[in-house]
Amino acid sequence: MDLIELQNYLYEKMPQVKSMEVEVDSITSDSLTVPAPLEPNINHKDSVFGGSASSISILSAWAFLHQKLASEGLSTTLVIQKNTMTYDIPITGKFSDTAKLSNRSDWDRFISMLKRKGKSRINVSSNLNFSGKNAGQFEGLFVAVGCKSA
Amino acid sequence: MDLIELQNYLYEKMPQVKSMEVEVDSITSDSLTVPAPLEPNINHKDSVFGGSASSISILSAWAFLHQKLASEGLSTTLVIQKNTMTYDIPITGKFSDTAKLSNRSDWDRFISMLKRKGKSRINVSSNLNFSGKNAGQFEGLFVAVGCKSA
Repeated sequence: MDLIELQNYLYEKMPQVKSMEVEVDSITSDSLTVPAPLEPNINHKDSVFGGSASSISILSAWAFLHQKLASEGLSTTLVIQKNTMTYDIPITGKFSDTAKLSNRSDWDRFISMLKRKGKSRINVSSNLNFSGKNAGQFEGLFVAVGCKSA
Repeated sequence: MDLIELQNYLYEKMPQVKSMEVEVDSITSDSLTVPAPLEPNINHKDSVFGGSASSISILSAWAFLHQKLASEGLSTTLVIQKNTMTYDIPITGKFSDTAKLSNRSDWDRFISMLKRKGKSRINVSSNLNFSGKNAGQFEGLFVAVGCKSA
């Protein structure tokens, strides 16, 4: 599934992804970035609602892991178990969120455990970016359950 | 502002609150509960998207603090600074979130500091409830800035 297919799939299956007008924009082996506009995510103070900031961070982290697994030819059920989030500055315009592994060196252990036990956990971090500034930080623990060839 | 007025205000000003079909349902001096349906918050696995769970927890905590301040005749700008969240079981139907102070004894200090310094912080906890079970736990630190009679 390429990024356009992934976005179409999420828009079809997850009403909130469509409602927040999140795009699945660009991916490398190290990170995935999702931009989002202010308007559908605005609060009563004309900045981004913290709930949207948190939700978009969760989505970008999930989509990054999903696509990184797909690049290894693997398909699994990915569920968030817990996260922390900070909201550092008000976001008053178009913004983006970039997800990456909290520790790149976790990947091999994560994949090895997933293949061996059918269940594995990994931490993903993401940064909200608004106008060139760090606007928030997310760190989430995800569990992958089941493993088959994508 | 009563709960119906608050809900109408949020629906008008915050597209995501309307999109998630959150209701502002009931409040006491100790807690506020917001129910939400599955359908607008569903993910591709037919359970509630973690982003919606997080977003609704943030909203209920914010609304609880907002109304508790209003009950003291105070109006302030309330902003979330950081939070933790756990996702404990899949939510596959109508659910709710109930917010309360993390420590009831924090309230007097919070109000006193807000009146004296015009800025004060307080922790709010909330629980997601699905089918009588605890489905997730939120704890958030909010900062109130400015203080005037509501």
